[in-house]
Amino acid sequence: MQGELKIYNTYTRSLEVFKPIKAPFVGLYVCGPTVYGAPHLGHARGPITFDIVHRYLLHLGYRVRYVRNITDVGHLVGDADEGEDKIAKKARLEQLEPMEIAQLYTNSYHNEIGKLNVLPPSIEPLASGHIPEQIEMVQKILELGLAYESNGSVYFDVNKYAQNHDYGKLSGRILDDLIAGAGNEVRQLEGQDEKRNPADFALWKKAAPEHIMRWNSPWGEGFPGWHLECSVMSTKYLGQEFDIHGGGMDLLFPHHESEIAQSTTCNHVHPARVWMHHNMITVNGQKMAKSLNNGINLSDLFTGENHLLEKAYSPMTMKFFVQQAHYRGTIDFSNEALQAAEKGLARLFNAYKLVDGLKTSATSTSNIQKLIDACYADMNEDFNTPKVI
Amino acid sequence: MQGELKIYNTYTRSLEVFKPIKAPFVGLYVCGPTVYGAPHLGHARGPITFDIVHRYLLHLGYRVRYVRNITDVGHLVGDADEGEDKIAKKARLEQLEPMEIAQLYTNSYHNEIGKLNVLPPSIEPLASGHIPEQIEMVQKILELGLAYESNGSVYFDVNKYAQNHDYGKLSGRILDDLIAGAGNEVRQLEGQDEKRNPADFALWKKAAPEHIMRWNSPWGEGFPGWHLECSVMSTKYLGQEFDIHGGGMDLLFPHHESEIAQSTTCNHVHPARVWMHHNMITVNGQKMAKSLNNGINLSDLFTGENHLLEKAYSPMTMKFFVQQAHYRGTIDFSNEALQAAEKGLARLFNAYKLVDGLKTSATSTSNIQKLIDACYADMNEDFNTPKVI
Repeated sequence: MQGELKIYNTYTRSLEVFKPIKAPFVGLYVCGPTVYGAPHLGHARGPITFDIVHRYLLHLGYRVRYVRNITDVGHLVGDADEGEDKIAKKARLEQLEPMEIAQLYTNSYHNEIGKLNVLPPSIEPLASGHIPEQIEMVQKILELGLAYESNGSVYFDVNKYAQNHDYGKLSGRILDDLIAGAGNEVRQLEGQDEKRNPADFALWKKAAPEHIMRWNSPWGEGFPGWHLECSVMSTKYLGQEFDIHGGGMDLLFPHHESEIAQSTTCNHVHPARVWMHHNMITVNGQKMAKSLNNGINLSDLFTGENHLLEKAYSPMTMKFFVQQAHYRGTIDFSNEALQAAEKGLARLFNAYKLVDGLKTSATSTSNIQKLIDACYADMNEDFNTPKVI
Repeated sequence: MQGELKIYNTYTRSLEVFKPIKAPFVGLYVCGPTVYGAPHLGHARGPITFDIVHRYLLHLGYRVRYVRNITDVGHLVGDADEGEDKIAKKARLEQLEPMEIAQLYTNSYHNEIGKLNVLPPSIEPLASGHIPEQIEMVQKILELGLAYESNGSVYFDVNKYAQNHDYGKLSGRILDDLIAGAGNEVRQLEGQDEKRNPADFALWKKAAPEHIMRWNSPWGEGFPGWHLECSVMSTKYLGQEFDIHGGGMDLLFPHHESEIAQSTTCNHVHPARVWMHHNMITVNGQKMAKSLNNGINLSDLFTGENHLLEKAYSPMTMKFFVQQAHYRGTIDFSNEALQAAEKGLARLFNAYKLVDGLKTSATSTSNIQKLIDACYADMNEDFNTPKVI
C-alpha cells in the first residue's frame, strides 16, 4: 500500500486521508443508473469519476469490491409523477413488460459506458433482485419503531429519527424547513396525506391497480421505496459499515440522506466512512431537460446525430473532457469544449508515441526536453495531481 | 407473416408447422448459462441456434419476446456435489462473495457470446432475482398437494403427479425405472433420505450452515431447487402457456421434465407449445470434461491460447462452424473442422464481395454464373434450407 489518498468527505466537509476499515479490503458503493431511458451525457460522469478511484485503489494494492446498483423498479421521484414507478409507466405506454424496458436500457447503459473503457463493478445488483431483503429491512425498521404503516404503504418516521440523529447533516438541510414544506422535494404530492409528517419518506408503497411492477408483502401488494435498495444492497455486499459511498451531488437529498437514516436505524452504525459526490454536466450553460430540448444521449455523442452536435466525438474524447475538470466542479458541455478536449487528447497521445520512439532511438537532451514539453503543455493542475480526489 | 416455419417438437417427436398462440406475438424461452465458470465451446451453440430462430421469427414479422435466464443460484447437479450450490462452493474456495463470482462470469458470458453477433434476449432474468415468486410457486404446489416438506426442504411428489400426467414423456424416461433407481441421475445422494421416492426432486432446499447463498422462507433458510426458476420466470414473462421452449438436449431430463411437472401443476396447462432442443459439441470425438483435460473456453478459441488449438479462430468462424451442422446433430470440434469452416466462410464472404462488385459493374452472363458457382460451392443442404429447423 504505497502512496496516500486524500478524499473530500461530503459528510464531514473536509479533505481526509483515506484509511480502509480493514485493509487490504476496500468496499466501494456507487449509486448506478435508473434504467428507464437511454444513457445520456450525465450518465458518463459517475462511472468515469469512480473508475479513477477504483483503479487508483487497485494501483495502491487494495482488494476492492466495487458495487454499483441498477435501479429497475420503485424509483419515486419528486415531480408530478411522484409515487408512480417511472419504468412501469413507460412500459404501460409502450405496452411492454417493464423488465423488457429495463433490460433494453440496461444493455444500452452497458454498451455506451463500456465504450469509455471503465472497469466493470464487481457486483451490479438489481433492485428487483432484492425484494425479500428489502421487505426484511422494512420489517426491522417497523419493529424498531422508526416507521409506520399507512393505507398499505410504510413510511420512515423522520421526526422520530431526528430526535437522536442529525437528519440533514449530509445534504445540509434543516429538518424544520423540510417539515414546513420549504423544500421543493416535499411538496404536497400523491401519498402525502398518508404521512404523519411531510418530511417522511416511503419505505414501501402500495401498488395502485394499474401499477404492473408489484410484489406481495406483509402490507399487501406493492413495491419498495427508492432509497431502500441502496441500504439493503450495500449492507448485503459490503457490510454494515464500509469504506466509500459515491454518487452524484443530485443524490445528496433525499436519496443519500434517507439511506443514512435507514441504514443507521437498522445497523446502529453510520454506513459509510467517506461520502464522495461528483458534480453534474450542463449543456451550453443549462441543465439538461426535456422542456429545453437539449438532451444529448451518449449514442448521439459517439455518432454525431443530434442537432446540438457539430460532429461525432469519440468515447475517449468524452472521457478526457470529463477528466480534465475536478470531479466536484460542474462541467459545461459545448462543441468548443469537446473540440478543445479532442486536441488535448491528441497532444497526450502524441507524447506517448514520442516516448515509444525515444525507447528505441538514442536519447538526447533535446528529445527529452521535447517530451517533457509535450507532456506538460496545456495540462491543468488537476490532471497532474491525481492523488488528491 | 409471410413464409412457413416448421420446427421439430421434441415433445411430440414430430415436425410441426409453427403457429403462434396469439400472433403477432411470439414467446420464446431458452435456458441460459449457469454462471459459475468461464463460457466454453458448449455455451456457444444455444445462443447461435436460437438466434437463428429469433431472427427468422422477426423476419417473418412477429413481435418476439425472447427470455433467456441466468442461473446464479441453487443449481443442484447430479454428481458428487449433489445438493450443494456450485457457485457458493466456488465462492467459499476463493473467499469471495458468490454474487461477485456470478457477476464475473455473467460479464464473461456477455463478452464472449456478444462477439458471435447474436441479438440479445428481450429479458435476461436472474434466478436470484425471483426468490419471492419461487417461494410462492412452492407454496402453491404444496397447497395443491403435489409436494411435501421434509426437514426444511420441499420436494415435488413425482409419483402423485404421474397418476394423472405423463411424467417422462418429453425425455422418454420410464418412471418405474426412475423409482427403481435405474437412472444415474437419481442415485442415492445427499438428501435422498428426505424423499418419499427417489424420483422426487427438490423445489426448495434447506441451506446447510456453510451454505452462504440463502434466503428466508416459510420452511426456514434455504434456496430454490434448480428446476423451479424456469417455471417461475417463463410464467412471469411469457404467460402460463407460451410458444417455444428451447434448450440443450442435456436439459431434457431432469430439468425440462421437472419444469413441465411444476408448471402444469400450478397453471393447469402444459407450458410450451413447442419444445426445441439443440445437440451438444464434442471435442475430438469426446465430451468435454475436466478429467479429460479437453475443455476449450471461448476466450481460448478467440486467442488461440489452449494446448488443443493450432491457432486462434474468429468468432465468425465458430458461428459458421456451428451453423453448418443441423442443430439436432452433434458437432465434433477439431482444428481440421474449424479450418474447413474458416475456408467455407471465406468463400461465402468472397461471394458477397462479388455481388457488391456486380452491382456497380455491367452484368454479364459469365459474371452471374461465377457468382452462382461461388455461392453454392461446397454449401450443404442445411445451410440452403433454413426454413426447416
